Amino acid sequence: MHTIKKKIYYHDTDCGGVVYYANYLKYLEEARTEFLSEKGFPVKELSSKDILFVVRSVKIDYRLPARYADELVIKTTATKTKNVTLEFTQTIERGEQSLVSAVTQLVCVGKDFKPKGLPQDVINSLRS
Amino acid sequence: MHTIKKKIYYHDTDCGGVVYYANYLKYLEEARTEFLSEKGFPVKELSSKDILFVVRSVKIDYRLPARYADELVIKTTATKTKNVTLEFTQTIERGEQSLVSAVTQLVCVGKDFKPKGLPQDVINSLRS
Amino acid sequence: MHTIKKKIYYHDTDCGGVVYYANYLKYLEEARTEFLSEKGFPVKELSSKDILFVVRSVKIDYRLPARYADELVIKTTATKTKNVTLEFTQTIERGEQSLVSAVTQLVCVGKDFKPKGLPQDVINSLRS
Amino acid sequence: MHTIKKKIYYHDTDCGGVVYYANYLKYLEEARTEFLSEKGFPVKELSSKDILFVVRSVKIDYRLPARYADELVIKTTATKTKNVTLEFTQTIERGEQSLVSAVTQLVCVGKDFKPKGLPQDVINSLRS
Repeated sequence: MHTIKKKIYYHDTDCGGVVYYANYLKYLEEARTEFLSEKGFPVKELSSKDILFVVRSVKIDYRLPARYADELVIKTTATKTKNVTLEFTQTIERGEQSLVSAVTQLVCVGKDFKPKGLPQDVINSLRS
Repeated sequence: MHTIKKKIYYHDTDCGGVVYYANYLKYLEEARTEFLSEKGFPVKELSSKDILFVVRSVKIDYRLPARYADELVIKTTATKTKNVTLEFTQTIERGEQSLVSAVTQLVCVGKDFKPKGLPQDVINSLRS
Repeated sequence: MHTIKKKIYYHDTDCGGVVYYANYLKYLEEARTEFLSEKGFPVKELSSKDILFVVRSVKIDYRLPARYADELVIKTTATKTKNVTLEFTQTIERGEQSLVSAVTQLVCVGKDFKPKGLPQDVINSLRS
Repeated sequence: MHTIKKKIYYHDTDCGGVVYYANYLKYLEEARTEFLSEKGFPVKELSSKDILFVVRSVKIDYRLPARYADELVIKTTATKTKNVTLEFTQTIERGEQSLVSAVTQLVCVGKDFKPKGLPQDVINSLRS
């Protein structure tokens, strides 16, 4: 399980007084990026080898709202790795509370946006 | 079926050269807002009667990327309306192509963020 | 004087109950883009000729806040056009009220981000 | 001089391949917030005493673009503090390079958005 911290600022919130629902997807991106980096695969380096990821689907559940000045924790696990697809399961928590959970599927593509096989070392690393 | 148009600008895109995946959720919000307004229920007016909506879940599928200067069409249908929940099914299209589809569930709440029943006239209108 | 309309949604606002201060810069971009398009120079077409614009500076004054559901008008004038730089003066209004005014300087560059001369027809058109 | 670090992700960039010009204003907000917090005045706590800040003006100069995966440093100094206004001078740097500089003026207001005097301890602390 990989974790990052995220603090909430004005620009994250909306006039309902809570974090805007689309913004959580930014934090999920940040967490996946840090996860891959920690595994030894910085996105920028993969990109220089023509290995990019695009999001194919997101299923996100919002249970409790995050608010201004909250300090959140985002937990990331790679739950599937095969051929051209990666799946991450993530939660966003505040202290003991689970605010948001999400499952995101990504597809490995080249600069032409056509699917291509995940590098074997990425597969091996994420499966272990 | 309700439709709005949406033009893509620089601020919608990312350095992958396409629209950033979280931004589609903004367009979905705009489309739902216009849908409710056209039905006779502007969100601002509902809000003044202590009727707010929070997103409980989103299931979104990305098939093709939108790009800078694209003119998109967002189509919205209310696919479920009961007690405290509303469900919208939406697609984002560019010409003949379906780029994105999403199902969003919202919960009707008061300012205290506690669920409350949808007004009967909203239910009647969305079901018809 | 060129004008566009802009409606405010949840994603434009923050938990202070008003439009977040950085978001006005998005509306200014949209208005400049539409201004250039109306003059016969769509940004996408210029871009295909290796003519890009980067913002060198912004001076923005916030007088009154815009709020959820506001319908704003953004007015744009090209106030300087010379060699490699363009200057736009813009206001954001709500009915009779002037909410925001801004002066933005852009530099014409190629894909290498090095300054290059504005095409003569752009200069002629914006000066007229 | 107060400093924070900021890492750049996909959601910060645009299809020009660099950070979108409005997004720097988010980083400036984050830096001012951390500055005030370190001085002993968390924005959330001030807010609970009906002391809010709204931005009156920003003058921002963009010299060099930040890019994906950059690790930036944002430096903040309070350059004026009087009655109802605060002025911050900030720079955004990458290694030895100064990318952006900005001067932001804020006004102290209550929930009614009317100007009110800065608390004396804030004035004393920022002047020292």
